[in-house]
Amino acid sequence: MSELRTIAEDDGAAQRRVLILDQTRLPQETVFVPLKTLADAAHAIRAMQVRGAPLIGATAAYGVALGLAEDIPLDKIIDTLAATRPTAVNLNWALDRMSRVLEESALVGRRELAWQEARAIAREDEAANAAIGRHGVKILKPIAAQKGRIDVMTHCNAGWLATVAHGTALAPIYAAQAAGLAVHVWVSETRPRNQGLLTAWELDQAGVPHTFMVDNAAGLLMMQGRVDCVIVGADRIAANGDTANKVGTYLKALAARAHGVPFYVAAPISTIDFACPDGAHIPIEERAAEEVGVGSMAFANPAFDVTPANLLAGIITERGIVPADQLARVKP
Amino acid sequence: MSELRTIAEDDGAAQRRVLILDQTRLPQETVFVPLKTLADAAHAIRAMQVRGAPLIGATAAYGVALGLAEDIPLDKIIDTLAATRPTAVNLNWALDRMSRVLEESALVGRRELAWQEARAIAREDEAANAAIGRHGVKILKPIAAQKGRIDVMTHCNAGWLATVAHGTALAPIYAAQAAGLAVHVWVSETRPRNQGLLTAWELDQAGVPHTFMVDNAAGLLMMQGRVDCVIVGADRIAANGDTANKVGTYLKALAARAHGVPFYVAAPISTIDFACPDGAHIPIEERAAEEVGVGSMAFANPAFDVTPANLLAGIITERGIVPADQLARVKP
Repeated sequence: MSELRTIAEDDGAAQRRVLILDQTRLPQETVFVPLKTLADAAHAIRAMQVRGAPLIGATAAYGVALGLAEDIPLDKIIDTLAATRPTAVNLNWALDRMSRVLEESALVGRRELAWQEARAIAREDEAANAAIGRHGVKILKPIAAQKGRIDVMTHCNAGWLATVAHGTALAPIYAAQAAGLAVHVWVSETRPRNQGLLTAWELDQAGVPHTFMVDNAAGLLMMQGRVDCVIVGADRIAANGDTANKVGTYLKALAARAHGVPFYVAAPISTIDFACPDGAHIPIEERAAEEVGVGSMAFANPAFDVTPANLLAGIITERGIVPADQLARVKP
Repeated sequence: MSELRTIAEDDGAAQRRVLILDQTRLPQETVFVPLKTLADAAHAIRAMQVRGAPLIGATAAYGVALGLAEDIPLDKIIDTLAATRPTAVNLNWALDRMSRVLEESALVGRRELAWQEARAIAREDEAANAAIGRHGVKILKPIAAQKGRIDVMTHCNAGWLATVAHGTALAPIYAAQAAGLAVHVWVSETRPRNQGLLTAWELDQAGVPHTFMVDNAAGLLMMQGRVDCVIVGADRIAANGDTANKVGTYLKALAARAHGVPFYVAAPISTIDFACPDGAHIPIEERAAEEVGVGSMAFANPAFDVTPANLLAGIITERGIVPADQLARVKP
């Protein structure tokens, strides 16, 4: 497991602040930037300096603490952060949790309580992801036993960069490497934001063998029998198991089904939206044109798509691998 | 139908030569470059200054004429051109036809005969594509009649740029526009070479409404019911209907099947390789790393993938729309 962190408190400064790894500058530069205000936190989420559903949740929790330190009313803080990005449910989950804890507390001590709760959310994410790694590696071990190596495909970045630490989809891969298994990762580019570069950077740092590919190559690689399983993260999982994740995930799931390749989603239980009945009720963020980088022409730029539950071999959570149609078993 | 041409003879120069539109410089610049030698023609194909199976075939035919004018032995000419790119069968088809015609002729007059035959190949491609447009529009008319407009998705570029004139997959779209139907095209980026930009440029020139999208968005758009049909070109069609086309085509075909969207291949009969039994026998070109543009990491860069015949609603040829499993009906 990697010891690297995407977000950390910084008590050294005169005023308590939060440091985040600016992911828009990776892999060229590894730069931590300070979040000093609510506005900084909201900007970091919106501009994707932090990204990945679990990390968005943790950053929002710290954003609440920063906002209270500025004497901004709690409801205004929540509204500001909730409006940053629509699809990742961990954002709402973290904000609901912060609200509940803070509203029940006396006004005095609220600021400190906000820091404590944000810290708890961050630490729980770290622990959940470590557990996802332990459970997920059970999928990989039989493959390694049978063919001597494992070829896993992933999409987007659901590594430690997408979380507080360890990652979700990459946690089983890091756990496999730690267990001495020969694991190789197919890293898809993930247009338009090219988060595959983040995954390749992470794997490079960790010494995990990997091969970069354009998103379009996924079908051919599966047809050629070069993929043993697919593991991706999630931005929101509906109660019925339908899963929203980075756009293009669904195409990989269809190809996996066509070739009998098991397709897993790895996510903490905080990514499951038990109030959302199915994928049709998940809001899909449409991002700006400039991201595709094609100038002035008309374009569609949905950031996510929905993979129906029936295409999933299971959901790897901190409480074990759950069939997508049996999520009620892990409802808190 | 567009009057634009990708390739033309130029008799104005002291020495007869061929002009090609350099597609590596589109859409920024519209530049015609001369091919004066066999080496020029081979380079143009290999470097993708010309691309698209039908245009590769026509360029190779002219390359034979250029090589004979240099007094290069015919078998050496054929070998040089055949080695440029492996997947497009029109290349072999055009070279076989040139060889057959030239080997049967007397040595005297061979050079002129080569020019005549190359010209015939180019003109036949133009006529075939015009016929593909006339047949293909029959698919679009009922959709327009039912919903008042037609949303077609395509992949890569199979417009007039990929042929001598008119295009294959875009020919029915141009024919629909000429018939006054409200047609809109979803143009996929087509990583890694971004040929979607060529398609967008073509459609822009022709005034056909279109929306650019990343390849990853195809599944979501079909799930949302925003695509009425898919039409793509082909680089090689096996005798059983399995079709090799630009990598990523297969993922769109899987998504189309999942949502009941008819998926058509448009190609002249010269793209059908009746000697190739099925998709497993089609060679898939692996192109250089630099195309993906990710520096020094390991990468896979297959240029094509294979869509199984059972995912196709039909193949639009110059002799009509043929079920993919009944290609013997159009065998020459």
